[in-house]
Amino acid sequence: MSFRFEIEAREDKARSGRFFTPHGEVQTPVFMPVGTVASVKGVPQDVLEELGVQILLNNTYHLYLRPGVEMVRKLGGVQKFMAWDHPILTDSGGFQVFSLSDLRKVTEEGVMFRSHLDGSSHFFSPESAMAAQIGLGADIIMAFDECTEHPAEYARTQASMEMTLRWAARSKKYFEEHKHEVPWFAERNRETQTLFGIVQGGMFPDLRRESAQRTVELDFPGYAIGGLSVGEPRPMTYEMVDNAIRFLPDDKPRYLMGVGTPEEIVHYVAQGVDMMDCVLPTRAARHGLLFTSEGRISIKNVRFAADEGPLDPACGCKVCARYSRAYLRHLYASNELLAQVLNTVHNLAYYLDTMRKVRQAIQLREFARFLSGFRPPHLAPESAHSQRGSEFPEI
Amino acid sequence: MSFRFEIEAREDKARSGRFFTPHGEVQTPVFMPVGTVASVKGVPQDVLEELGVQILLNNTYHLYLRPGVEMVRKLGGVQKFMAWDHPILTDSGGFQVFSLSDLRKVTEEGVMFRSHLDGSSHFFSPESAMAAQIGLGADIIMAFDECTEHPAEYARTQASMEMTLRWAARSKKYFEEHKHEVPWFAERNRETQTLFGIVQGGMFPDLRRESAQRTVELDFPGYAIGGLSVGEPRPMTYEMVDNAIRFLPDDKPRYLMGVGTPEEIVHYVAQGVDMMDCVLPTRAARHGLLFTSEGRISIKNVRFAADEGPLDPACGCKVCARYSRAYLRHLYASNELLAQVLNTVHNLAYYLDTMRKVRQAIQLREFARFLSGFRPPHLAPESAHSQRGSEFPEI
Repeated sequence: MSFRFEIEAREDKARSGRFFTPHGEVQTPVFMPVGTVASVKGVPQDVLEELGVQILLNNTYHLYLRPGVEMVRKLGGVQKFMAWDHPILTDSGGFQVFSLSDLRKVTEEGVMFRSHLDGSSHFFSPESAMAAQIGLGADIIMAFDECTEHPAEYARTQASMEMTLRWAARSKKYFEEHKHEVPWFAERNRETQTLFGIVQGGMFPDLRRESAQRTVELDFPGYAIGGLSVGEPRPMTYEMVDNAIRFLPDDKPRYLMGVGTPEEIVHYVAQGVDMMDCVLPTRAARHGLLFTSEGRISIKNVRFAADEGPLDPACGCKVCARYSRAYLRHLYASNELLAQVLNTVHNLAYYLDTMRKVRQAIQLREFARFLSGFRPPHLAPESAHSQRGSEFPEI
Repeated sequence: MSFRFEIEAREDKARSGRFFTPHGEVQTPVFMPVGTVASVKGVPQDVLEELGVQILLNNTYHLYLRPGVEMVRKLGGVQKFMAWDHPILTDSGGFQVFSLSDLRKVTEEGVMFRSHLDGSSHFFSPESAMAAQIGLGADIIMAFDECTEHPAEYARTQASMEMTLRWAARSKKYFEEHKHEVPWFAERNRETQTLFGIVQGGMFPDLRRESAQRTVELDFPGYAIGGLSVGEPRPMTYEMVDNAIRFLPDDKPRYLMGVGTPEEIVHYVAQGVDMMDCVLPTRAARHGLLFTSEGRISIKNVRFAADEGPLDPACGCKVCARYSRAYLRHLYASNELLAQVLNTVHNLAYYLDTMRKVRQAIQLREFARFLSGFRPPHLAPESAHSQRGSEFPEI
C-alpha cells in the first residue's frame, strides 16, 4: 500500500489530516509550491525545507522537454534528480499542452503539440503521458485530461468531459500495467506512485456532478478538480468546487488544481479541499508583489524607499527577520537577482504559514473563527485573473 | 583608533594577520566578494555569513546613483542598509567613472560623467567622492584616483600619476575634516572610517616606485595598488605589483584591486598582498564557469548532462554536498534563476576556501609547499583578460 490518507480532525466541511507517500508524509490541507522544471525559481532546496514545504509540484510538459523523461529516469527520478527527498506531484501535462492553443491538435487518441522551446512536434496520449509521469517518478501523478477552455458551450463542455472520462480509464489501465516501472520501485520496497483522477465539466453544475460521479466510478485513491481558475468569476469557481466535492468520497483527498490567493485557499479549505498548488506566490514575488498580514504590497513603490521596517511585522521568515522594506525596494528597483530570491522566500513563507494556521485551527475546532478574520476572497484584487499555469522560464 | 593591523605570521614575502574595523575584524590575506549595489548577486546575507565572507566590497559609483548617498546615510550606512553587520569597503568610484569612456570628461578639478542608467550628468571630485564614501559609511574607503588607461605612453602615465597624487592629498584633507560625519559615528563610540591611498603608475616600474613612495609620504593606514588587471599580460602585473610593494611600509595592509583567478590570488599573496577583490567568481558563476579543485568547468557542457557526481568532490560547500552536476547543468541549460544562485555560492566557497588554506599555510610556514601545488598562474585561461569592473546589473 503506497498511499494512505487519514483524516484527523473536521470542522464543518473542512478537514485536517495527513497522507503517506513513498517519499514521506504530508499534513493536509497542504499548499504545494510550483517547481516547474524541478526548481522553485531562485530558492535552494534547503531553504524550501526550512520553510516547511512538504510537497512540490513539477510540470510534466516542461520536464518531458527538458531534460527529458529518460534522463530523469536514468538519474533515479525527480526526487533524486533535484535532491529533494520528499514528496513530489506531477501534473499530467494536459494543462500546458492545452495552453499552447496555436501549437496543438486534439483527437480522441491524444494531443499533437509543438514545443514552446524549439517548435518540434510531440504527441501526448493518456498512455504516453502516463509513461512520462512514471518515468519522472513523482509520488502522486495525474490522469491525462482535457482542460476545457473558458468560456465553452454546454455541448462542447460535455463532449470534452466525456473524452476526459475515456482518457481517465485509459490512464488508469496503463498505470496499473506499468506502475512497477517507476525508477525507485526496487529501492523503495516495491512501492508505487499514486494516480489521481481529475474532475472536469466546465462551468455547468450538472456536468461537474456527472464528471465527479463517473470519475469516482473509475475508483482512484484521490481526486483532483481541474478546469477552474481559468478566468471565470470567483463565485462561479466556488459553485463548481461545491458541485464536484459533494459527489466525491469523503475518505479520499481532494486536490483543487491551480489556485489561489491566500484568502481563496482558506475559503477552498472551508469547502472541503485538501490540496492546492499555484504559481501565484512565486510569480507575483518575481514581479515585486508581496503578500503580508497587512495586505498586498508592491515593493517597487517609492513610499518604501526609506522604510526601515520589516516587510511584514507579523512574519517570522528569514527575510522579514533581517531586511528592511527600504533594502528590498532598492533590490527590486535595481533589478538585482536577490530581489527575486528574497521576495519568493517571503511569499512562500506567507502561504505556508497560512496553511499551518489553517491546519491548527481545524485541529482546535477554531477554523470558523479563523476564517471570519480573513477578507472575503472575492474582494481580493487577483481573483478575477487566471492563476493557472506553470512557471515558464521567461516569466 | 578605528583601524589596527597586526601581522601574526610570515613566510618569505607572504604575511598573515588581521585588521580591526568598526564593524569587526578581518583575517588576512583576505578575498573580498563584490556586492556592487549592496548585494552579492543572488546570494542572501546569511549565506555569505555561512560561507565565511569577512568583508564585502560595494561600488560607490553604483550606490551614489541608486539608491543615492543621502538615502543610505539616512538609513544608517551601508552595513545597516544591507543588513550586513560586518566590515565593508567601498571603492572611490574612480574606476567605474573612468570605464564610462564616452560619457566622461576629466579635469584637474575632477570628473564630469553621465549616468549609465539615465544619462544624467554628475561630477566627482576628490572632495565629493570622499563625501559620498563618508555618507555611505563603509569601514574602509579609498582615495579618489585616476585609473590610467592601458596601454598609455610614459608622459601620459606620469601626468596621470601626478594628478592621482594631488587628488590623494585632497582626498585625505577632506576626509580628515569630515570623518566624524560618518552615519554611525556616535553609535560606534566615535570611531571613524579608514582611508587608504592608491598607487598608480601604469606599466612603468619607475613610476610605480615613485607613486608608491610619494603616496606613502602622504601617510595612509593602508595602501592599494590600482590600475592593474586592465588587459596587460600577467607577468607585467606581477612586475608592477613587485615594484609597488617593495616601497610600501611593511606594517600596513596592501590591497591589490580587481584581481584575480584562484591561482593568481595565491601568487599575489606570495608577493606580499593582504587584500584582494574581484568580480570573477561571481560573474563567471552567472555564465556557468565554475572553479573546482579539478580545474575549470563550464557547467553547460553536455558531458555533464547525466553526471551524478558533485561539482567538486573536494569541496564541502552546500552546493557540492547536495546537488549533482547533472542537476546544475539542467538548471543552467533551462536558464533557471537557481543556477545563478547555486553557481555563485560554489564559486565564492572555492575562493574563500582557497584563502582559508592560504592563511593556514602561512601560519604553519607551509605556504611555499602549498604554492607549489598550484598551476602556474600565467597558464590560467582567464589571465589575459581584464577582471576589473563592478557587477553592472545587466551583466
